[in-house]
Amino acid sequence: MRIGVLCSGGDSPGMNAAIRGAVLRGVEVHGFEMVGFMDGWRGFHEDDRIPLDRAAVRGISPLGGVILGTSRVQPFVSGRGDEADIRVIRDRVDAYGLDAFLLIGGNGTQTVAQMLTDHGIPAIGLPKTIDNDLSGTDYTFGFDTAVSIASEAIDRLRTTGDSHRRCMVLEVMGRDAGWIALHAGMAGGAQVTLVPEFPESIEQISEWVLSVRDRGRSSLVVVAEGFRLAGGAAQTTRDGLDGFGRKRLGGVAEVLAPLIEQHTGIETRATVLGHVQRGGSPTAFDRVLATRTGIAAADAAHAGQWGTMAGLRGDRIAMVPLAEAVGHLKTVPEARYEEARLNFG
Amino acid sequence: MRIGVLCSGGDSPGMNAAIRGAVLRGVEVHGFEMVGFMDGWRGFHEDDRIPLDRAAVRGISPLGGVILGTSRVQPFVSGRGDEADIRVIRDRVDAYGLDAFLLIGGNGTQTVAQMLTDHGIPAIGLPKTIDNDLSGTDYTFGFDTAVSIASEAIDRLRTTGDSHRRCMVLEVMGRDAGWIALHAGMAGGAQVTLVPEFPESIEQISEWVLSVRDRGRSSLVVVAEGFRLAGGAAQTTRDGLDGFGRKRLGGVAEVLAPLIEQHTGIETRATVLGHVQRGGSPTAFDRVLATRTGIAAADAAHAGQWGTMAGLRGDRIAMVPLAEAVGHLKTVPEARYEEARLNFG
Amino acid sequence: MRIGVLCSGGDSPGMNAAIRGAVLRGVEVHGFEMVGFMDGWRGFHEDDRIPLDRAAVRGISPLGGVILGTSRVQPFVSGRGDEADIRVIRDRVDAYGLDAFLLIGGNGTQTVAQMLTDHGIPAIGLPKTIDNDLSGTDYTFGFDTAVSIASEAIDRLRTTGDSHRRCMVLEVMGRDAGWIALHAGMAGGAQVTLVPEFPESIEQISEWVLSVRDRGRSSLVVVAEGFRLAGGAAQTTRDGLDGFGRKRLGGVAEVLAPLIEQHTGIETRATVLGHVQRGGSPTAFDRVLATRTGIAAADAAHAGQWGTMAGLRGDRIAMVPLAEAVGHLKTVPEARYEEARLNFG
Amino acid sequence: MRIGVLCSGGDSPGMNAAIRGAVLRGVEVHGFEMVGFMDGWRGFHEDDRIPLDRAAVRGISPLGGVILGTSRVQPFVSGRGDEADIRVIRDRVDAYGLDAFLLIGGNGTQTVAQMLTDHGIPAIGLPKTIDNDLSGTDYTFGFDTAVSIASEAIDRLRTTGDSHRRCMVLEVMGRDAGWIALHAGMAGGAQVTLVPEFPESIEQISEWVLSVRDRGRSSLVVVAEGFRLAGGAAQTTRDGLDGFGRKRLGGVAEVLAPLIEQHTGIETRATVLGHVQRGGSPTAFDRVLATRTGIAAADAAHAGQWGTMAGLRGDRIAMVPLAEAVGHLKTVPEARYEEARLNFG
Repeated sequence: MRIGVLCSGGDSPGMNAAIRGAVLRGVEVHGFEMVGFMDGWRGFHEDDRIPLDRAAVRGISPLGGVILGTSRVQPFVSGRGDEADIRVIRDRVDAYGLDAFLLIGGNGTQTVAQMLTDHGIPAIGLPKTIDNDLSGTDYTFGFDTAVSIASEAIDRLRTTGDSHRRCMVLEVMGRDAGWIALHAGMAGGAQVTLVPEFPESIEQISEWVLSVRDRGRSSLVVVAEGFRLAGGAAQTTRDGLDGFGRKRLGGVAEVLAPLIEQHTGIETRATVLGHVQRGGSPTAFDRVLATRTGIAAADAAHAGQWGTMAGLRGDRIAMVPLAEAVGHLKTVPEARYEEARLNFG
Repeated sequence: MRIGVLCSGGDSPGMNAAIRGAVLRGVEVHGFEMVGFMDGWRGFHEDDRIPLDRAAVRGISPLGGVILGTSRVQPFVSGRGDEADIRVIRDRVDAYGLDAFLLIGGNGTQTVAQMLTDHGIPAIGLPKTIDNDLSGTDYTFGFDTAVSIASEAIDRLRTTGDSHRRCMVLEVMGRDAGWIALHAGMAGGAQVTLVPEFPESIEQISEWVLSVRDRGRSSLVVVAEGFRLAGGAAQTTRDGLDGFGRKRLGGVAEVLAPLIEQHTGIETRATVLGHVQRGGSPTAFDRVLATRTGIAAADAAHAGQWGTMAGLRGDRIAMVPLAEAVGHLKTVPEARYEEARLNFG
Repeated sequence: MRIGVLCSGGDSPGMNAAIRGAVLRGVEVHGFEMVGFMDGWRGFHEDDRIPLDRAAVRGISPLGGVILGTSRVQPFVSGRGDEADIRVIRDRVDAYGLDAFLLIGGNGTQTVAQMLTDHGIPAIGLPKTIDNDLSGTDYTFGFDTAVSIASEAIDRLRTTGDSHRRCMVLEVMGRDAGWIALHAGMAGGAQVTLVPEFPESIEQISEWVLSVRDRGRSSLVVVAEGFRLAGGAAQTTRDGLDGFGRKRLGGVAEVLAPLIEQHTGIETRATVLGHVQRGGSPTAFDRVLATRTGIAAADAAHAGQWGTMAGLRGDRIAMVPLAEAVGHLKTVPEARYEEARLNFG
Repeated sequence: MRIGVLCSGGDSPGMNAAIRGAVLRGVEVHGFEMVGFMDGWRGFHEDDRIPLDRAAVRGISPLGGVILGTSRVQPFVSGRGDEADIRVIRDRVDAYGLDAFLLIGGNGTQTVAQMLTDHGIPAIGLPKTIDNDLSGTDYTFGFDTAVSIASEAIDRLRTTGDSHRRCMVLEVMGRDAGWIALHAGMAGGAQVTLVPEFPESIEQISEWVLSVRDRGRSSLVVVAEGFRLAGGAAQTTRDGLDGFGRKRLGGVAEVLAPLIEQHTGIETRATVLGHVQRGGSPTAFDRVLATRTGIAAADAAHAGQWGTMAGLRGDRIAMVPLAEAVGHLKTVPEARYEEARLNFG
């Protein structure tokens, strides 16, 4: 069996370990031939590939990034995913002599894995996103590393905030789901954690910050980039701003900090963690999760379990039908937000 | 409701976060009065206690160790756990005006929680052990931190091993269960991982080490302290040795290294990680798990769910009957060991 | 002898270790009585102080921030530092029964130490700034920690840059001197390092980035916040922008990234490290340097060496006349910039 | 000019950065041709070498270990360093077309560099040892990383010691000089620091440990592997012990811990840090120091400054005559030990 491997979407710590796990199990145990496409679908469309064998994956688990590269190039040439697009892919699959795909990516990639399988091109998904917003798995690899980095940033910012009696606002990733903010905020003991799922007003936030001050402490506010203020006109001002790369730095923290300062009279500083939280050596947790995901995906390929995704269920890796995983984002539920609120104010 | 909190057994990163979670939820939400006994059952028997309120748990999540201290002092004065022992405890419980216990500990402590509840002294367990050998929960807090530290040690030892073309042997904790070795070995890409559950002969181990050398690499061997060589007389030699604190350093790695060197002709060095792996600031994962465990335990106390333990089930904390958790150790199953063997040799 | 201790200016990792070193030596060895003023000169003017003895400094070396707090409140009430201002200080010094000051701070604080000594109020300086721009010492404590954090951020960003074949721009602190950028860039192998001392044109920077691409790599650009583009109108645009806290996040990286992208056609992302680099637990290097600085300052007080600063000279701490230290910033010399350029392009 | 590079002795974090600095400067700026010998003098004698150019050193600064490998193989075949030995080396130098050597190593290697130069084979030394016991330089690269790791271990052990009210003994490297123990002990706030230069009796050590207990704390004792008890027969017992790899683990801590426990009645635990402290990614400090050392060595080769070593002097790298560097170990002076004693007991 000849299996093509590619990564799509943003990078996520653990991708190398996942590839290594799949290759060691696929090649050494199941006797697969495996090839990796460079930079995701770009490498597929341009026939840019490397053989994946034991030597190719030697010692890569601790490394950040991914040896294959990744990109947001789309699999479907027209962008629509219609019959003609599928035909282009099928032609290449035949030309390369591929029997199946292992696709490493987030929600979009898992959807593609489902579509390919539906059209007779066998595929298995390996879920990967630092945002942890994929259904069908307890956690995605990359998430624990992102949380660790954000949590360490909180530990650092807190000491500065305490020394200067300032309110510190830290913006972390999470456009649609607030998982990183939720976990890092709980790990770091944030006094306010703001997530896209639960808008709060600037008045409420300021009340929490003042209440912390009244207890003699300085506030640490963690905010996910996708958070929006409840009922306020303030944030629309920012949305109208253009240019100079500022959007790439997020922006929510930059809007929030002066508003908090204005409402509370407490000096407030913003920090945008940015790309730092998605790079570098993965945590041991992510390396183990990713390695096991790769192993399970290779086993599933051997067993012909196409159209599935290797998800974490408790302490086991289970093959989940892709249909269960794609289509709806996993967002922070009320009960988890309530846990976090324990420390608010 | 007045609730007593105490920690028993070896320390485990996350204990402070667990106490903080339980106190913030118990005192602020449920209106409990909470007291902490110092150094486990010693503090209980000697009436050495502190009030646990918001101020007492301020900022403690990132701290290693535990603000209450812990010890291996037994709850039962006679050591038997008979009626007289229970009566001593009940008398103190009455004297202190306690309504219930939150007990933070490993297998032994959870057994005590069950016994107390059986005798009408309500108790709830919070599972804690770096060894991860407790049933009834996917993971115990402290384990992820221990694995992280061991994994980082592997990353460090590997570069030295490669530079000198040596075989490096790292001994990690795990007397009865090899979880730390298993996870750290997978995270660090160990070429041999030895756990108590699966004895291997020195001949087999040496074969793996030689095979790695033949591929042009240096071996990294991770061994759990409880591992025993299959069929060999060698190790009994060591067991006969006395004194000078050597047992405390483990000893398996010290026996194994010269045997490997002797069988392979490859220079081999042993390192015993020791107490370093159980101390210091917990990982973000352990802080979150411990905080949520504390919250769930406080909620369970509010709901009167006595005789239960707050276990991790997937991404939820579930209250598990203590009967399910105690009595049998969770050891490494065959399938997990097989995953690890992927990289052997 | 009764000695007042206070911290002024931005916080810098190591301040706690410096206080601890001074107190252990001053109180235990020389028999001083020591008091600490909270939040710098605010505490002095408002008589907000705590006794500094062995118990007060117990276990504080590893902690970030500073137990006394710090602020930018000025010592001189009028802001001019005239006779009337000095008289106010002298009156308080008499009222508090102080014999001398130990002043922990940067260039401004050391200037104050000199002025006080000149006016008969004995003072000794402890140099502290993450920017390392103080003359009279090889390195200031806090600098090594800042460099470590920035260097780790580079390690992380690089893997993301490589995976996506992007140019990554990291902005670090350094308004007038580029030391953090210089050292972190060298530690992280940055392909371009931009410092305030050496303006470069966008054309030159883009040429370097393109040359790196031609060698098959992705560029990592480190830029100090005080860097200004040579000969360009571009940056003035940014200087004209107002509000929303953006200036606090720096802004140079935000201007530079889109310009690089525009000139090279390579996708470019900016990250502003911000306050993360000045907080948290100090490195071992900074703890040792700070502790020794504190010890030397206490010894100097005992010896009556007023008007001096405890500077690092090789592996010794030497008392340097404040006149040598203040007045001119230590900036990056040509030879050091040339070393860094080794890797450019 | 054709220059041979090799590493000798134990590995030390920063060796890769030193090679990279020398190669980037030597090849790109001075136009040298450079070759690296594998595994030190073994590669030289067996003609096992690789070209060192920009591609060979790409991205290696953050990596632990050394790309060339290192070994303790001696340069002199007979082991005497006589005329015949020199002739063997000279013949190979001629055969390989080498003009000069850059030798990366500790005291022994620098002595060889001197001897070669004296015999007309030009050599320049790059000082490297985690032990920091080389004269002619403020610090050697690798030392800061070792201190960081030891300091982090102290932070971790301390929390366990405090939780259990135990005395923790940590053994670090340092056979003849106690620099690692001295700096790590100061950084971690050790209550006792024991170095080879200053023997102390078990009675004195126990007195310190008891005094710490009386102040309500738990002791952290750092001991260099080369420390010997003053006046005691106890340690000779250990020296008589054979076998099972125990000597490799040090042994001082294993002797000391039970003695302390016996003299104080306080439960005491030993940890031997071992090889963990010499591997892994170097600190930013070591990367910068090593890179600059490499650059300076290449410049010195260009300038024909043979028989010198690149030493750190304050914030500059200075070429020091090898005669100043070799022959006498740099040990911990009385004044530095006195600083450390500040916190004893």
